[in-house]
Amino acid sequence: MAIRSGLNLQPGQELVIQAQLEAVPLVRRVTEHAYRAGASLVTTLLVDEQAALIRLRHGSDAGMNAAAGWLLDGLATAHERNAAALSITLGDPSLLAGQDPARVGRVSRAQSAAGKRRLDLITQFRVNWLVLPAASPGWARAVFPGVAEAEAVARLWDAIFAASRIDGADPLADWAAHYGRLAGWAARLNGRRYASLHFRGPGTDLRVGLADGHLWKGGAGVARNGVTCNPNIPTEEVFTTPHRDRVDGHVTSSKPLALRGSLVDGIAMRFEAGRAVEVSAREGGEVLARLLDTDEGARRLGEVALVPDSSPIARSGLLFRNTLFDENAACHIAMGSAYTECLVGAASLGPDEARGRGANDSLIHVDWMIGSGEMDVDGVDADGQAEPVMRRGEWAWEAG
Amino acid sequence: MAIRSGLNLQPGQELVIQAQLEAVPLVRRVTEHAYRAGASLVTTLLVDEQAALIRLRHGSDAGMNAAAGWLLDGLATAHERNAAALSITLGDPSLLAGQDPARVGRVSRAQSAAGKRRLDLITQFRVNWLVLPAASPGWARAVFPGVAEAEAVARLWDAIFAASRIDGADPLADWAAHYGRLAGWAARLNGRRYASLHFRGPGTDLRVGLADGHLWKGGAGVARNGVTCNPNIPTEEVFTTPHRDRVDGHVTSSKPLALRGSLVDGIAMRFEAGRAVEVSAREGGEVLARLLDTDEGARRLGEVALVPDSSPIARSGLLFRNTLFDENAACHIAMGSAYTECLVGAASLGPDEARGRGANDSLIHVDWMIGSGEMDVDGVDADGQAEPVMRRGEWAWEAG
Repeated sequence: MAIRSGLNLQPGQELVIQAQLEAVPLVRRVTEHAYRAGASLVTTLLVDEQAALIRLRHGSDAGMNAAAGWLLDGLATAHERNAAALSITLGDPSLLAGQDPARVGRVSRAQSAAGKRRLDLITQFRVNWLVLPAASPGWARAVFPGVAEAEAVARLWDAIFAASRIDGADPLADWAAHYGRLAGWAARLNGRRYASLHFRGPGTDLRVGLADGHLWKGGAGVARNGVTCNPNIPTEEVFTTPHRDRVDGHVTSSKPLALRGSLVDGIAMRFEAGRAVEVSAREGGEVLARLLDTDEGARRLGEVALVPDSSPIARSGLLFRNTLFDENAACHIAMGSAYTECLVGAASLGPDEARGRGANDSLIHVDWMIGSGEMDVDGVDADGQAEPVMRRGEWAWEAG
Repeated sequence: MAIRSGLNLQPGQELVIQAQLEAVPLVRRVTEHAYRAGASLVTTLLVDEQAALIRLRHGSDAGMNAAAGWLLDGLATAHERNAAALSITLGDPSLLAGQDPARVGRVSRAQSAAGKRRLDLITQFRVNWLVLPAASPGWARAVFPGVAEAEAVARLWDAIFAASRIDGADPLADWAAHYGRLAGWAARLNGRRYASLHFRGPGTDLRVGLADGHLWKGGAGVARNGVTCNPNIPTEEVFTTPHRDRVDGHVTSSKPLALRGSLVDGIAMRFEAGRAVEVSAREGGEVLARLLDTDEGARRLGEVALVPDSSPIARSGLLFRNTLFDENAACHIAMGSAYTECLVGAASLGPDEARGRGANDSLIHVDWMIGSGEMDVDGVDADGQAEPVMRRGEWAWEAG
């Protein structure tokens, strides 16, 4: 599924995998499938999270601003030469919990700055890419607290398979049908050309202006290298680019956010003219504050996404404490860089034109969850006329 | 020892580690010591040898010529920016034994070609670098066949510690004394300015001309970034650059050579005017033949090294099946690229000048062992006058 459908790796194409050490068994299986699909070369960059901890504990203060630019530039070069990108995520959501947020923030910022060239290639959808989950003991403990480790890991794998729609008799056919459903939602929203969305729910009354000439996308799409791919497994969202200057009102998170190894919960923000002017969190507020201090664009939105509350992940009732899953259980917004592919005529747009249309730019792109079964969403047209898009977390047109 | 004495990592210096997956426990300890010594950033590239096997088994034929140039160029850039280099070696000496030598050879050649920029920085001693061993089950099985795995690994660690002279009460002092001894041997040889060395032993009668203005080196030296470092632990050799066109006679290996995951044993070569014109091996001949087909320089010598037969490694009586150890138990020569740092005035020499002095150039640099307790070595001056350098594997001046 990952190689054939999600990434759709092409014969002769190079593949770069980024994964944590514990994912090596999955990396080996994916590597074999990639070569069977005709990959010219598979290169894996393995990350040891313990090394990150050792750095935070023993590294010099000056060193916290350092990043391996030579490596991140190398990755960007690989993708410029058409290498596909696969990231496998299995982080312990609270690995860095006890560490100094100032040091964690500086390390993250340096990493983001050095990785900007690579991130731009991904957000511009220049090559086929995929983010794929793998269970790990740390993650399993966080999702199933109190359950014995082996049992928790097994249950997490089952939950991943169910959420990723690969537990059926014919996963490739199930995904083809799922892509069709997501494309149908996107087409319906694209037909309406809303100027903004209006979110209302407990603690939330937020108007999100959409970028001029925005495009809704979801599921599989065509990367600029011509390859049809689906960058996230699982995926249940349709998403588009908001207007960086047209977000107003207040909004509250509906699920905790795993951020830089800490958990941020009970987020509340108030926006004025696109900018988050008031920010608080019941837990992890300092990590969040440092994220938003990354640059000016970090306080503005780069993505708005709609997910029905009946998604398999939402229905599982599990809190995965992992954005790849939790963002696919609820409507969400992202702080930071926009996916410029969600603009009409994206391939020929320069950065200034994309910005002129309202696309935000930043070193970061961090989703957080605002939706629930109590969320209503209206679509508002250029004349201010509103119509229901979602009611109580479900598509209004499906209820009607 | 590795960080403080071998690599002599400087405060604020970046460090790049290359290691195999099984070395992660040692990598973590070295990483901690590096940060304690003031490293700005430690980046580890972990290699999974199983992935190399998967590639050889399932990769397309065309893909065998591919290499991650973007990554190897990135490494070269890191070293150009003064990052120190640490390689940890623990390979199973026969991991690739059953694989198609043609495919193994093409993969190695592509890797060598893409890594040439990086290798040149190392052979030019542009930054402080170090190769360090770590025990692994595969290696332990090869050194101690028939011994239970845990016991074999423990015995291999003990052998590594003894060979590396870190089993004494004050390893840093022991190494300081050892550096002095190696420097003394190099100074003595440099004082003689031999035109060539004449090796005689069972199956060997070889004259190795030395490069014009060659320099003998051994132990710690000053890299071009000004840092005094000792690039190999263990190290027992003094070495210099032979003349690429002035090697004549025949020579036989005294120990097997672990090469590209296979074992090559019983090597015999005949040289004419610097070129290996006849080559055979009792075992692994095809792997050796492919190595020598890499390029024209692969059939010529890039290093000649003298090691007394009383080195701790030779005395252990163990065959490590790992060049880092076995080359330090016996006089050896290397096929391929020369260390141009072993030329007088190296820092200001261009590639053409180095070549004009006799330094060989190649994509490869592979040592093989020719010395033993039965080896005699003469130093021959420009007038053809010979004098004893080694007798029965020991320094002639120490015997006298």
